[in-house]
Amino acid sequence: MTNHVNFDVPERILLGPGPSMVHPRVLRALSQPVIGHLDPLFLAIMSDVQKLLRFVFQTENQLTIPVSGTGSAGMEAALCNFIEPGDEVIIGVNGYFGGRMRDMAERYGATVRRLERAWGDVFSPEEIEQELKKKPAKLVCLVHAETSTGALQQIEEIVKITHKHGALFLMDCVTSLGGVPVMVDSWGVDIAYSGTQKCLSCPPGLAPLTVNERARQVLHNRKTPVKNWYLDLTMIEHYWGDTRTYHHTAPISMNYALLEALKMVQEEGLEARFARHRRHAEMLWDGLEELGLKLHVPINHRLPSLTTVLIPEGVNDKEIRNRLLTEYNIEIAGGLGAFAGKVWRVGLMGYSSRRENLTLLLAALKILLK
Amino acid sequence: MTNHVNFDVPERILLGPGPSMVHPRVLRALSQPVIGHLDPLFLAIMSDVQKLLRFVFQTENQLTIPVSGTGSAGMEAALCNFIEPGDEVIIGVNGYFGGRMRDMAERYGATVRRLERAWGDVFSPEEIEQELKKKPAKLVCLVHAETSTGALQQIEEIVKITHKHGALFLMDCVTSLGGVPVMVDSWGVDIAYSGTQKCLSCPPGLAPLTVNERARQVLHNRKTPVKNWYLDLTMIEHYWGDTRTYHHTAPISMNYALLEALKMVQEEGLEARFARHRRHAEMLWDGLEELGLKLHVPINHRLPSLTTVLIPEGVNDKEIRNRLLTEYNIEIAGGLGAFAGKVWRVGLMGYSSRRENLTLLLAALKILLK
Repeated sequence: MTNHVNFDVPERILLGPGPSMVHPRVLRALSQPVIGHLDPLFLAIMSDVQKLLRFVFQTENQLTIPVSGTGSAGMEAALCNFIEPGDEVIIGVNGYFGGRMRDMAERYGATVRRLERAWGDVFSPEEIEQELKKKPAKLVCLVHAETSTGALQQIEEIVKITHKHGALFLMDCVTSLGGVPVMVDSWGVDIAYSGTQKCLSCPPGLAPLTVNERARQVLHNRKTPVKNWYLDLTMIEHYWGDTRTYHHTAPISMNYALLEALKMVQEEGLEARFARHRRHAEMLWDGLEELGLKLHVPINHRLPSLTTVLIPEGVNDKEIRNRLLTEYNIEIAGGLGAFAGKVWRVGLMGYSSRRENLTLLLAALKILLK
Repeated sequence: MTNHVNFDVPERILLGPGPSMVHPRVLRALSQPVIGHLDPLFLAIMSDVQKLLRFVFQTENQLTIPVSGTGSAGMEAALCNFIEPGDEVIIGVNGYFGGRMRDMAERYGATVRRLERAWGDVFSPEEIEQELKKKPAKLVCLVHAETSTGALQQIEEIVKITHKHGALFLMDCVTSLGGVPVMVDSWGVDIAYSGTQKCLSCPPGLAPLTVNERARQVLHNRKTPVKNWYLDLTMIEHYWGDTRTYHHTAPISMNYALLEALKMVQEEGLEARFARHRRHAEMLWDGLEELGLKLHVPINHRLPSLTTVLIPEGVNDKEIRNRLLTEYNIEIAGGLGAFAGKVWRVGLMGYSSRRENLTLLLAALKILLK
C-alpha cells in the first residue's frame, strides 16, 4: 500500500458561482482526525458552530444549525418542515432558484402561487402585498441573492408586509450569507438557509439554516408528520439541541471546516467583510465595462458577490471559458437555464474576493476577447 | 487574522459503530484544494469514484453513486425513489435500523408490513416466503449488518425468493460494505446503500448507493413524481450520468476523500480486507470471552465488523465508556434504543481494524472491569 495520495488536483482560481476558494486554514481544519459524532469534544464543536452561525445570520434563534447536505438540502429543509398538503405558498420566481423552490414546494403538496419577474429583476413590496391581499398564504418565499442572475432582493419591507398578512417569510441567502448584509432578526425573517461554499468559503457539503420561534411553533403545530425523514427538524432539533439525541451521523470533518471558516469570518468582522466584497465587486464592474462588456443587472440592485456579464455578439461562450480554465487556471461559469449561452457568471466570494484575482481575470479577458 | 487552525482535535482510537478511524492518506486527500463541481477534473474524479464503488459493491450497475448525505440519506434515497403511495413494502425489523426504514417508508405512503424478530436474530428464507405468499409486495427490505445488534443477515436465498414473488430486494449494507462480503450482482440485490464512515474508513458525509436495471425501470415507470427533491434519482442520474447535468453542488472534498479511501480498498484487495476484518474480530471475541464477558449474537450469524457485548451485572455502562475515552483515548459505544444500558458496541472497521487497537481495548477493559 503506497503512503501518498493517489491523485492531485490543482489550486484553481475559482471565480464562478461557487464553490469559492477555500483558505488553507480551513483545509487544514478539514484534515484533522475524525472523532465520534457523540464525542464530548464534537458536541462542543457543534455548539461553537451554532454560536458562530447565529453571528453570521445576525440572529438569536436557538434553532440554527448546519443541515447535513449541500445548499439545496437547506432549501428543502426550509420548505418541507413548514409545508403541509394544501398550504398556500407564494414564491417569487425571478431566476433559476426561485423555480427550484417552486418544484420542491409542490412535491410537499403546497398550492404554489408563483409571482414571476424577468430574470435579473427584483420584487417590490407592493406586488407582494397585492398578492397577499388577494388571498392569505402560509409562506412567502424569496431569494435574497439570485445565483443565476446576480440580482439582490430588498427584504426588510416585504417581511413587514408578510407578517401583517399573517404569513411566514422564508429567505434563500445562499449567495449572500457572509458577503452581503443578512440581518435575520432585525429584518424579522422567519426561516433562512444558505450554503457553505459561497461567501463563507468552506467546501460544499453543509447548509446553514435558521428558524425563529414563530416558525418553530408552526413546525410543532403540524397536523401531519414531516414527509422527509433526513431533514425532519422535529428530530434534528434534539440532536443539535440540549439532549443531543442521535438522529443521523453528522459529517464530522465538514463541521470542522465550517467552524474554521466561521472563525475566519468572525476575525475579519462582518462589516469589513461586506466592504471587501463590495470594493472588489466595484473594481470588477468598472473593469468589465472598460472592456466594453455589459452587465445584466442595473447597479441599484446588483449583487456584489455574483455578477452576470452579457456575452458579446459573436463570442463563443464555451471557448472563452475553456481558455480561461486551461490557459489561466481561472473558473467562471456560464448561464443556467434561460441564461445558458447568454451570460457569464463571475463570483467574487469569500476567499476568492481578492484584488489579485479580479485583476488577473480582467487581464485575461482583455487578451481573450481582443 | 491568524494563520493557524484555531482548534485541535485529538486522534481518538475509534472502536465504536462508526465513524471509524481515517487513514492519513484519506485526510490528505480531503484537504486538497477545492475545484468546481463541473470542472473537467472533478467530472473525472466522479467517474473514478463510481468505478471503484462498483468494485466494492461487486456490481456492474450503471447507477452507482455516492449520495450527498450521510448513511441515513442513502437509506432514504433507496426507499423514496421506489415507493409510491399505497405500495406494499415488507421490512424486516430486528434492530434499530430496520425500525428506521419502516419510519421512512411510511412517510412516503407505503403500506408497511413489518416482520419482527428479537434484536440480534436474523430472518430465515422461509418466513420471508411465507409473508410474500400471503400477499404480494413491491419491495422487501432487510439490513445485511445491523449496527445496533451486530447480527449478519444471509441474503442470497432471500433475494431469489423475493424475485420469484415479483418483488424488488433492497439491502442496507451500511456496516458491511468493505468489511464483509457484499456481492450485489451475484446475489441479485436490486437496491443497496451504505455509508462511508464504517468499513470504508472515510469520514461521514456520503452514502454509496447502487441500483440495478430492474429497479431503474421501476423508477422510470413511476406514476407520481419522487416526493423528495434532493434525493430524486431521476435527476441525480443525469448529474452522475453521461450528460453531467447540474442538479446540486456535490460535496467536492468529501468525494476526494472517498476516492482515496476506495483506492486503498482496491490496493488491499477485497478478499484480504475481509480476512483482516474476520481475523481481528475473532481475536476480539476470544479476548472478550477470556475476560468473562458474554457476546450477544451467536457465532453462526455474528458480524465481524461490529460486536455487541452484554454489560455485566453491576457494571456502570457510562462510567466504563467515559474512562475508556478519558484514560485510554478509546471510543466504544453504548446500546441504541432497546439495547441502551444493556450492551456495548465495539466496532473493528476499516482502518480501525488493527491488532494494536483490539489488544489495547482488551487490556484496558481488563483493568477497568477488575
